[in-house]
Amino acid sequence: MARLHTVDLLRKKRDGYALSAYEIEHLVAGAVSGAVTPEQLSVWLMASFIHGLSLEETRALTLAMRDSGEKFDASRLGKPAVDKHSSGGVGDKTSFLVAPMAAACGLAVPMISGRALGHTGGTLDKLESIPGYRTDLSLAEFESVVARCGCAIVGQTPTLVPADRVLYSLRDRTGTVENTGLLCSSIVSKKLAEGLAGLVLDVKTGSGSSLRDREKSAYLAAMMVAIAEAAGTRTVALLTDMDQPLGSTAGNWIEIAECLELLRGQRPDASEDLRELSLELAGWMIHLGGKAFEPEEGRVMAEATLRDGSALSAFLKMIEAQGGDLSVFDDPLATHKPGATRVLEAWAAGVITEMDTTEIGWAVQRTGAGRAKAGAPVDPHAGFEFHARRGARVEHGQPIATIYATDEAHIEEPVRRLKGAISISAEPLRVERALVGWVFDRQSAEAYLADAGKKGSRD
Amino acid sequence: MARLHTVDLLRKKRDGYALSAYEIEHLVAGAVSGAVTPEQLSVWLMASFIHGLSLEETRALTLAMRDSGEKFDASRLGKPAVDKHSSGGVGDKTSFLVAPMAAACGLAVPMISGRALGHTGGTLDKLESIPGYRTDLSLAEFESVVARCGCAIVGQTPTLVPADRVLYSLRDRTGTVENTGLLCSSIVSKKLAEGLAGLVLDVKTGSGSSLRDREKSAYLAAMMVAIAEAAGTRTVALLTDMDQPLGSTAGNWIEIAECLELLRGQRPDASEDLRELSLELAGWMIHLGGKAFEPEEGRVMAEATLRDGSALSAFLKMIEAQGGDLSVFDDPLATHKPGATRVLEAWAAGVITEMDTTEIGWAVQRTGAGRAKAGAPVDPHAGFEFHARRGARVEHGQPIATIYATDEAHIEEPVRRLKGAISISAEPLRVERALVGWVFDRQSAEAYLADAGKKGSRD
Repeated sequence: MARLHTVDLLRKKRDGYALSAYEIEHLVAGAVSGAVTPEQLSVWLMASFIHGLSLEETRALTLAMRDSGEKFDASRLGKPAVDKHSSGGVGDKTSFLVAPMAAACGLAVPMISGRALGHTGGTLDKLESIPGYRTDLSLAEFESVVARCGCAIVGQTPTLVPADRVLYSLRDRTGTVENTGLLCSSIVSKKLAEGLAGLVLDVKTGSGSSLRDREKSAYLAAMMVAIAEAAGTRTVALLTDMDQPLGSTAGNWIEIAECLELLRGQRPDASEDLRELSLELAGWMIHLGGKAFEPEEGRVMAEATLRDGSALSAFLKMIEAQGGDLSVFDDPLATHKPGATRVLEAWAAGVITEMDTTEIGWAVQRTGAGRAKAGAPVDPHAGFEFHARRGARVEHGQPIATIYATDEAHIEEPVRRLKGAISISAEPLRVERALVGWVFDRQSAEAYLADAGKKGSRD
Repeated sequence: MARLHTVDLLRKKRDGYALSAYEIEHLVAGAVSGAVTPEQLSVWLMASFIHGLSLEETRALTLAMRDSGEKFDASRLGKPAVDKHSSGGVGDKTSFLVAPMAAACGLAVPMISGRALGHTGGTLDKLESIPGYRTDLSLAEFESVVARCGCAIVGQTPTLVPADRVLYSLRDRTGTVENTGLLCSSIVSKKLAEGLAGLVLDVKTGSGSSLRDREKSAYLAAMMVAIAEAAGTRTVALLTDMDQPLGSTAGNWIEIAECLELLRGQRPDASEDLRELSLELAGWMIHLGGKAFEPEEGRVMAEATLRDGSALSAFLKMIEAQGGDLSVFDDPLATHKPGATRVLEAWAAGVITEMDTTEIGWAVQRTGAGRAKAGAPVDPHAGFEFHARRGARVEHGQPIATIYATDEAHIEEPVRRLKGAISISAEPLRVERALVGWVFDRQSAEAYLADAGKKGSRD
């Protein structure tokens, strides 16, 4: 093959042409080796953002990124590995439920998660509210925890998909994050490097999702399924509702505590949507992992692990194996004491018609529970507890939410922003949104993409 | 004014919106201070390349760049300062003629030039073929030479328009050079920082120009005139032919020697186009500098400086003041002896119909006269001498050009490429191209831009 000149590739993409797989491999290899400079990578990302990446380019980028470093060797575990990825949101804590449920059904769940960024919470930050819990395991330690407990939840290791770390950091600083092709390659490459038998993608839509537009969410979901399936991993994507926070809490420790109740077999009313979505996702994981003929059967098996305590036990085993102090679970509410508490009461009688969930995410962040910039610490105590949800009828003065903050100085702004994000109306709710919308498997994803291609729709 | 977040500006330009002057000033100031990173600047340049820069954006960028460092204070010279800028080409050596002609007419010419890059020759490289000639003067030395000699030709100083150095280097590495708005701001900002009374722009069109398309060249020319005029500098732009090398030579020393003949009042046939264009440009410089009521009168004055030897004397005075050894001019052809020489003879009888001048420029570069990459040395001896031009009727075996190269190893490729760039046809020349096409002054530039705006034409 001819030697490639990086600047020629940049000009080609600049002028709106698609790059070949060979050309994309040159850029990804150069991102890791340093042969392609950060400035050159950045302009490639910007040109790709503006012109869009074709399905073929996205596939090539995903595979080149997958192959840019070491891989997790799931075959040594002696059981099928499955994972779930969520595109992020507010109060999204299904990982703490689906990983132990699938593990309790005999699957391996090697889960690599992220941190809070912008308005969305971070799985690792939530776990680190458990004293002693380590998320920075080496690849060998990670494998050992999965082998012993059936599941492990860790941060990105330096050697797995190093190209993503380089590219993601540039995208964050250059305004090139929210592009379906770039999002797809970043998410799917990391999952393919885990050596999975099955992958379930939870793609959020609605006011709390990064891609607010339903068509864009669907396109991303279909693209991820098609590419992961073509790479040999059985994959489904569920389009799920993020038009209000998921479950009754948003924060760090407060979300762990909510999950603990469900794992203990309790069924708090306000957590019903969280329980429902977790069972749906776990059902698919168990099915794709080969433990159930149908996702519905997987769901029944998942439900049983909540009833018989086997999911709770897998969860506690994992926490302990990753260094967490289990005594904090004896009295969850005594573990973290917020510095300031306020109750938001309904300022009118009526129905809660809207919850602007991105804005609620920012309000959560301002309590101290999220981070204003990468690398900043988070407060494990801070967060929101919701007492009413979309569609609920409230009386004047009825508590809508309790706000927990680092201290008094951090409580006024989140209360004000939360209030601004909620609409109470005399009219009843007009549109009921389903918790789970479309489900894409290989066949429906390919049909959707072919149809989108015909209509010429893309970013 | 509100504090700006760089990434918000990148997103705005990414999505196709024009940035405000205030936003562009933030990016240019950040380019110099380092507050905006090279990656962020690069994606801004790429988004600007793809979506185009509006006239207002280009104006704001030009002024922000002009103000990014020190300025040349022409007012201390006690006479009007004028300059000429050429968009570059092959055999383009008018600077060595127009600067001394204008100086001999009582004007100051503080000329800042560039080096050979790609297929185009570099004014500084040509001057450095004169032993001892220094192009790296400080701003104070530069001013002193202009004050004493009427003209000086130097390289970019580190303190004048530092933003251009940062941005140009990024554009070169990221494939974002050939955009009219970016070209305009780079050229005009540097000229405005020279504190000129008058500016003449020589914008090349045709096969040897960077912008081959005539409409693009015209748009660039009109934009530069409108922006420089609005900034208070009287400016004209001439669209001139680069469908064949200018004059009879292309290289380094060989071009100085050609100019010396003209300055000595000789009129070699093969240099007629060079003489003609130089008089035209100098006529405009003398007019804009206020020494002639009309450009035609300026042209007559310029012609007189060739006849009476005053231009030659200004040239020699400048060379000496910049450290050059004048004894080399006693016998120009003895000064530099090329390592290898070859004559290209006509391979058929007929008319020379085409000379692909970009390809000829690359052939010149391969003799050793140009540089394959920035920072590489050039050979002062190497280059081409042309014995026939477009439209000439040649017999089989008649010499078309003589090729001078560093050594025998560097002569085959340029000869082969030169031959490939020239077409000899039995048919006569169909299109005669005028040496000087459109001339834009403020009024015609603004009319052209208004018309282009109506037609929606841009990059």
